[in-house]
Amino acid sequence: MLWGRDRLTIIDQTYLPLEKKIIDLCDYRQVAEAITVLRIRGAPAIGVAAAYGVVLAAREFEKEDDFWGKLQGAATELRQTRPTAVNLFWAIDKMLAIAVANQERPSSEIADLLEAEAILMTEDDIKCNMAMGLHGEPFIIDGDVVLTHCNAGSLATVDHGTALGVLRTAWDKGKRFQVYADETRPLLQGARLTVYELMEHGIPTTLITDNMAGHFMQQKIITKAITGADRIALNGDSANKIGTYQVAVLAKYHGLPFYVAAPLSTVDPRLKNGDGIIIEERNPDEVTHLYSSRIAPIGAKVRNPAFDVTPAALITAIITEKGVAFPPYEESIPRLLGQI
Amino acid sequence: MLWGRDRLTIIDQTYLPLEKKIIDLCDYRQVAEAITVLRIRGAPAIGVAAAYGVVLAAREFEKEDDFWGKLQGAATELRQTRPTAVNLFWAIDKMLAIAVANQERPSSEIADLLEAEAILMTEDDIKCNMAMGLHGEPFIIDGDVVLTHCNAGSLATVDHGTALGVLRTAWDKGKRFQVYADETRPLLQGARLTVYELMEHGIPTTLITDNMAGHFMQQKIITKAITGADRIALNGDSANKIGTYQVAVLAKYHGLPFYVAAPLSTVDPRLKNGDGIIIEERNPDEVTHLYSSRIAPIGAKVRNPAFDVTPAALITAIITEKGVAFPPYEESIPRLLGQI
Repeated sequence: MLWGRDRLTIIDQTYLPLEKKIIDLCDYRQVAEAITVLRIRGAPAIGVAAAYGVVLAAREFEKEDDFWGKLQGAATELRQTRPTAVNLFWAIDKMLAIAVANQERPSSEIADLLEAEAILMTEDDIKCNMAMGLHGEPFIIDGDVVLTHCNAGSLATVDHGTALGVLRTAWDKGKRFQVYADETRPLLQGARLTVYELMEHGIPTTLITDNMAGHFMQQKIITKAITGADRIALNGDSANKIGTYQVAVLAKYHGLPFYVAAPLSTVDPRLKNGDGIIIEERNPDEVTHLYSSRIAPIGAKVRNPAFDVTPAALITAIITEKGVAFPPYEESIPRLLGQI
Repeated sequence: MLWGRDRLTIIDQTYLPLEKKIIDLCDYRQVAEAITVLRIRGAPAIGVAAAYGVVLAAREFEKEDDFWGKLQGAATELRQTRPTAVNLFWAIDKMLAIAVANQERPSSEIADLLEAEAILMTEDDIKCNMAMGLHGEPFIIDGDVVLTHCNAGSLATVDHGTALGVLRTAWDKGKRFQVYADETRPLLQGARLTVYELMEHGIPTTLITDNMAGHFMQQKIITKAITGADRIALNGDSANKIGTYQVAVLAKYHGLPFYVAAPLSTVDPRLKNGDGIIIEERNPDEVTHLYSSRIAPIGAKVRNPAFDVTPAALITAIITEKGVAFPPYEESIPRLLGQI
């Protein structure tokens, strides 16, 4: 993700790993579209991208009479792209709060301030991920075989990654381990993005289908699991990519640790527990088709929730940029939040 | 599957559900190829197909001097197609035993006897499945949402099916329930075959990806699970399609029953438990590609076990053609075997 004053340049992740296609998003509508169709994805990344979307909207409308109405309209459109990741709302709210706090100033100055904030958010995301890496790397030891699900790497963030950031930092500190990557149906972020990223980093990675994880735990090959999160309640219940919940259940059943790595912006302070987390249900075509190939009979009924909620009781620890939260999360998470 | 004296006619399942392509297998080599590449699949179906392969070999070699050597060679080739399903070996052994018991007769008569046996095996498979349906249907009640994995239906057998046969019989008796079908990566037998079969039968079926099963158990939507089996040890440990083990773990964790439906020919009487079951590891391309589309980076390392072993302790009951085995299976399975 690269900001160029009048455009946000991203890797269009829908083409990875076969093609590294770089695209420019030149207005907030393009940013919204890119988030909706997963050209850019991952809770931290879509938060920062949406912030730049607000900047682009402010620039577009700074000379217009109805600056505030239009800015709000753009923010609403950006909000409606995806319902589960809280970082999206967190970033947009933060941007709007800055605009409101400076409402006496000319619109062009507000746009400047918003741009400065988005750039700060970008830098903060990288710092956060580096800090998470340092807090999380002690959990990884030589000889580990770490299962991960979906993509919580540099492609899901501004850089370095959350769950994969922990693995990256551990690797860079000389720890030698392997990763098993769930392919993560339906959109195959594991196969397409995680394997690609980890191979680029030189970390030995084995791709498996999502239904093999239990078998490799039973065979005592996988030693622990780590994933990112899209929204975390105050009690530690964590929403993440569909399939994460069953990875956590399988880890528990086999006596293996299950870690979540996410910045504190992922915590939704309005949620006491995970019951209130809205689960996005996506287009059935994602399940019935793969690229252009239909893989199910015409007319097949489909469910396609994009996320599930892992109860806190299944989570060994939550790794954040301010330190590691252990159970009881009702106490440890608010304590870390107090340090922001 | 249709026998026509000089050929075995099958649906080439690699084209389903988009195309119902019918092919003729005219010699044992074609039968072996069809089993290897999964044109025909499912433990009971490949057992019967291999039996017809032996018949085709006997016909081919009946006028040759080295009838016995060549028949044995063909049997060996058929055996080498797939390592896990015991029905394959069971069927070939049964055919060879009939040949040996009649070795004094002319080769053409031996071929006649083998053909008669294969036809009998075909009829027996259907009878078995109908009987399994009757023994298993009491486990299905109105309002159930039954999870199934892979395809244990009419396409995996001669007709009716094992796990899906139980559902078919329950449906035909007027029970009204739904099925959730795991798509079953990598080869998508659930999406391609199970959904197709159940839709044809009019049973309401919802397709999900393999990583959603836990979520729908957590949501209290799925009420029980049923699968087939490819090999069962005397203690009840059951090998079946990769992913079955984690379905069983998830069912246990959520307090849901997990049933296996399989003919007694699936029991391997030489195995005290599942430790000795050989797990077929298939081509990595099945994971890295979907039809012609590559979905993982070039050079990605892959594991691709085709099966896993579900320990008996996770299995609520095993439904066979002679009745239902309950734990302790060390006692109930040999008791049923004694009735064959």
